[in-house]
Amino acid sequence: MTHNIAILGASGYTGAELVRLIAGHSSMKITALGANSKAGQTMAEVFPHLRHLDLPALVTIDEIDFSGIDLCFCALPHKTSQEVIAALPPDLKVVDLSADFRLRDPAAYKKWYGNDHAALAQQEEAVYGLTEFYREEIASARLVAGTGCNAATGQFALRPLIAAGVIDLDEIIMDLKCAVSGAGRSLKENLLHAELSEGYHAYSVGGTHRHLGEFDQEFSKVAGRPVQVQFTPHLVPANRGILATCYVKGDAQAILDTLEKAYEAEPFIKVLPLGEAPSTRHIRGSNFCHIGVVRDRIEGRALVIAALDNLTKGSSGQALQNANLMLDIEETEGLMMAPLFP
Amino acid sequence: MTHNIAILGASGYTGAELVRLIAGHSSMKITALGANSKAGQTMAEVFPHLRHLDLPALVTIDEIDFSGIDLCFCALPHKTSQEVIAALPPDLKVVDLSADFRLRDPAAYKKWYGNDHAALAQQEEAVYGLTEFYREEIASARLVAGTGCNAATGQFALRPLIAAGVIDLDEIIMDLKCAVSGAGRSLKENLLHAELSEGYHAYSVGGTHRHLGEFDQEFSKVAGRPVQVQFTPHLVPANRGILATCYVKGDAQAILDTLEKAYEAEPFIKVLPLGEAPSTRHIRGSNFCHIGVVRDRIEGRALVIAALDNLTKGSSGQALQNANLMLDIEETEGLMMAPLFP
Amino acid sequence: MTHNIAILGASGYTGAELVRLIAGHSSMKITALGANSKAGQTMAEVFPHLRHLDLPALVTIDEIDFSGIDLCFCALPHKTSQEVIAALPPDLKVVDLSADFRLRDPAAYKKWYGNDHAALAQQEEAVYGLTEFYREEIASARLVAGTGCNAATGQFALRPLIAAGVIDLDEIIMDLKCAVSGAGRSLKENLLHAELSEGYHAYSVGGTHRHLGEFDQEFSKVAGRPVQVQFTPHLVPANRGILATCYVKGDAQAILDTLEKAYEAEPFIKVLPLGEAPSTRHIRGSNFCHIGVVRDRIEGRALVIAALDNLTKGSSGQALQNANLMLDIEETEGLMMAPLFP
Amino acid sequence: MTHNIAILGASGYTGAELVRLIAGHSSMKITALGANSKAGQTMAEVFPHLRHLDLPALVTIDEIDFSGIDLCFCALPHKTSQEVIAALPPDLKVVDLSADFRLRDPAAYKKWYGNDHAALAQQEEAVYGLTEFYREEIASARLVAGTGCNAATGQFALRPLIAAGVIDLDEIIMDLKCAVSGAGRSLKENLLHAELSEGYHAYSVGGTHRHLGEFDQEFSKVAGRPVQVQFTPHLVPANRGILATCYVKGDAQAILDTLEKAYEAEPFIKVLPLGEAPSTRHIRGSNFCHIGVVRDRIEGRALVIAALDNLTKGSSGQALQNANLMLDIEETEGLMMAPLFP
Repeated sequence: MTHNIAILGASGYTGAELVRLIAGHSSMKITALGANSKAGQTMAEVFPHLRHLDLPALVTIDEIDFSGIDLCFCALPHKTSQEVIAALPPDLKVVDLSADFRLRDPAAYKKWYGNDHAALAQQEEAVYGLTEFYREEIASARLVAGTGCNAATGQFALRPLIAAGVIDLDEIIMDLKCAVSGAGRSLKENLLHAELSEGYHAYSVGGTHRHLGEFDQEFSKVAGRPVQVQFTPHLVPANRGILATCYVKGDAQAILDTLEKAYEAEPFIKVLPLGEAPSTRHIRGSNFCHIGVVRDRIEGRALVIAALDNLTKGSSGQALQNANLMLDIEETEGLMMAPLFP
Repeated sequence: MTHNIAILGASGYTGAELVRLIAGHSSMKITALGANSKAGQTMAEVFPHLRHLDLPALVTIDEIDFSGIDLCFCALPHKTSQEVIAALPPDLKVVDLSADFRLRDPAAYKKWYGNDHAALAQQEEAVYGLTEFYREEIASARLVAGTGCNAATGQFALRPLIAAGVIDLDEIIMDLKCAVSGAGRSLKENLLHAELSEGYHAYSVGGTHRHLGEFDQEFSKVAGRPVQVQFTPHLVPANRGILATCYVKGDAQAILDTLEKAYEAEPFIKVLPLGEAPSTRHIRGSNFCHIGVVRDRIEGRALVIAALDNLTKGSSGQALQNANLMLDIEETEGLMMAPLFP
Repeated sequence: MTHNIAILGASGYTGAELVRLIAGHSSMKITALGANSKAGQTMAEVFPHLRHLDLPALVTIDEIDFSGIDLCFCALPHKTSQEVIAALPPDLKVVDLSADFRLRDPAAYKKWYGNDHAALAQQEEAVYGLTEFYREEIASARLVAGTGCNAATGQFALRPLIAAGVIDLDEIIMDLKCAVSGAGRSLKENLLHAELSEGYHAYSVGGTHRHLGEFDQEFSKVAGRPVQVQFTPHLVPANRGILATCYVKGDAQAILDTLEKAYEAEPFIKVLPLGEAPSTRHIRGSNFCHIGVVRDRIEGRALVIAALDNLTKGSSGQALQNANLMLDIEETEGLMMAPLFP
Repeated sequence: MTHNIAILGASGYTGAELVRLIAGHSSMKITALGANSKAGQTMAEVFPHLRHLDLPALVTIDEIDFSGIDLCFCALPHKTSQEVIAALPPDLKVVDLSADFRLRDPAAYKKWYGNDHAALAQQEEAVYGLTEFYREEIASARLVAGTGCNAATGQFALRPLIAAGVIDLDEIIMDLKCAVSGAGRSLKENLLHAELSEGYHAYSVGGTHRHLGEFDQEFSKVAGRPVQVQFTPHLVPANRGILATCYVKGDAQAILDTLEKAYEAEPFIKVLPLGEAPSTRHIRGSNFCHIGVVRDRIEGRALVIAALDNLTKGSSGQALQNANLMLDIEETEGLMMAPLFP
């Protein structure tokens, strides 16, 4: 059986990544590609690396007939996404990759994103899309909210530890290094090759990055009480990858045991042997997440380091994994490709 | 039906790339991985990006029992390869990725590689592995010699043009830009990140690059008379990709028509519209080759530019394509993955 | 004696490079920085790497009092530059870094740039700024037109050879590889790190690059008859550097002798021993140009390869060198810093 | 007056960086270049970017006549350095760039480096070379021990804060990101461009990095009681730069005030306005160190982020700054060049 798929926002990086992944999927067929700003162009013109595929031309979202669509990926900017999704057929299965439906509390949404939410009914029904922790809800959901890519990385490292109470909840520091494709195809001076390629820096410093809204929501939910982490992202000169270095207080062996148990049946999460640190180069282009645990020389302290590809496991791969669940397809279908190295 | 596969030289980049590709192949199973210098280690230790795969441990080549192997990829350094292949079971199907069996003439081999050939019987039977032009011979071959990655790129651009006589055979200049993985995992000062990453230069200048042996052999064969191209490779700071900019004398439209006709049924070779130039970023990690033709402002001159991934279409992807033919599997099996961009 | 300097267009890369160079100059002082779009900001805000310098704030060009200025660098976009320069005090010494005054013939200007020239009087008096070949004219000029960075590179390689008649004038092919800072700080999709960093491609193919206007003008002038070269630039993932690989017909030794003689007294042009190829990494951040000559295996053919830093010798360094001449300062003052490697 | 300078270990990156800097120094002249493994070669052969300089050829250290040398830089590997320096004339002024004389306690040296110290007398007299904090001792020293590049970065961020008691001494976490040239020109697989360029990872995890020996020594000395920081370095795909992100407990404003006061007269240390984060791209190739202070959203927590160039301020620039002091030259001589950006 073939499922008909629409992708809205096909001219961005997460849209292109969805096309790349679905091209290798045995039972999905892309039947509509929406991209208002590039409507009328072919995908080969917008993304020449997809030239070999037989794809529908880009159209405006208004032009799409959703009647035969089984599932729609929405890879639009936040704020636009909520408006578009509110106007879609109410029974259409949707996986949203924007930030619009991640936060359960409209006040939290407004705090982090600045505007009132314009699709509260959809926000109400949306399921948080961190597959490994919301599998059942996702399988029966109509609307799934893909997580932030940084938020996914940090949660893979810490969520089981917070749930198990093996680390000090008030002393969590997450130093995150992310690659540039996470910023999308937007024209900003600091994303130019000449600006970015030979340096690196912290940004959204001091606890101002929006993905903190997700950390606060999810970690507090898991802990059963408010949890706030200290979180500093850095931009490094590479295209794909997130590395979250988490400084925690707890016993390294207990931490490792907890993670191994939490992920033992997971196809995409790989916990490394004690003392081994993961690298973004080893998950590049794949849906895998590598997690390492290290005991520090200072008694009672440990590192938990997680690495994943922001465009795949952090975004479009996660979205496809969720779509598989929603369409009752094998969860790993189309997602088992090996990383690209070198 | 599952075919049992051995890979010799599994600790190098082309070996790892074979594993990556075969991991997505529906009817091949890797049953032996040979790597003398890293025998005893697991593939996950040598290449952590392959950690998720269930693979045999690395062993010395001597330890491998070839009796159940259907096909053996040999990704060893040249000179070593001929010695190893001479000692393999004489009826074992072999795809060699080294330079050892590319040149038909032992004297030419000695001229370009410096040593006498140590496996003349095997050299005699070897078929040149440029799939699109030796398909039938490869399908029935026991031993196939994978081409040089630069040699493949240049031939895709020029071979049909030389055959058709639409360009001046004495005025071919090929300026080639290649990425660093083509040099392998060897420890050389000029391959260090600190040396390479912010500059670029020509190397093997003046007609001294060994792949010229292949160009001379193949272009002369196709033309029916001696053809020598002027060829200068450059090393650029990227990991994957070859771009061959070929300066030719001939009519651009006739050139385009010839290439379109030659490749119209080819699944992996894509000829771009007249005037469009390909980019290595659009074939990265894939088995595709993009070719562009441009008319120059100077009457009677044209550019033919070809781009491919040296590790895939230029080496391990080509090898798998040939293995598919040799094992009577669909030629494109395991090779249709989309490029990775960004 | 200290010379008061103004820089117009200080918020672009060539403007910043001028500031970097002049900061190490013993007798120039920057007294005005014009940048209409960023007026009101400090240079440290626009270019934090210049934070340690005591510089005037950015102002609009209209706000600048030119009465005390000894020389003005104009690092504005072409077309804007001609308008601004036409309105400057008529006796103010000006070094223009744009394309506006490079072409002697207004018709040629219109052909390559599309618009009628708006400052014909100034165009008439401008001197072409290729220092090594126009030294005397520059020393007495009021307005000097900085050359194109690609145009400078190609001329350093070929100009003495064309003048001496040691190469075939109808068979010159220049394959050029340039780094991304040459495109300036402009917000274009293909200049984003995620787009550019892992691939490379030819652009302005087929003889459409505007620097061909300079090659045609200067090579024809030197040869005493029309000369057209075939020229293809490529964009490579690095920030600084141009490498011009020139394919010529002529005797390699005669070519080397000609270049050595032409440049023997030049402080910035270094001719390498026969057979050695230069690299952009070895001139990075400096005002040097390295030139190599290689004999090809094909009789009567040779390579001439030139490397320079597009922002320094190709633009702002050249401009300062010319300004030194115009102000009767030692030509090399402020320009002898060593390249930055690694 | 001109001072005669010898550089031992001239074929490594710090040796080359010394040559680059001294080439712009008004009163130093390089009269001997030692490099045992490359003796007999010219510097232009080993480092073509220094081709324009008139330098002595490389010789073995034994061949150098130290009688006319005023100061010797020793840029050799640790362990070799102590042996060489022990054999130098006992009154020769020496700036050592290795790790051999950084630790005051021979037991600490053995703990971190594994071997007994072979030059205890010299170790006894050596002065720790963190210029801004040991200025007087350095001025009168015969032997100065250059600091680790990571150790310098972390100390610039934290040393005044520990001295002033404005941060919690038991809760210091330093997450450091360093570029690849810090690893030197050594042939290691993980330093190859193909391995490093598209990923990043933590290394020497868990408190095993040798520069911790310096942090322990210096921070404990300043605090007057034992201080241990948690320190994790990461390798990122860039050539120059160290970014130390320090997570501390204390009041951000008090921290900023303390740093501003400590560094107000320092020519090379620039403290940014509150809330601003430095970038390695803005100190590249220079002797400057930028420090930013950020208040976190969590009450009582702050970030202190320091950026410098490991080869310049972190190593060879620091060494030259110290040599200036030792030779009674203006401390900033030869070191005020602006960073190279882009």
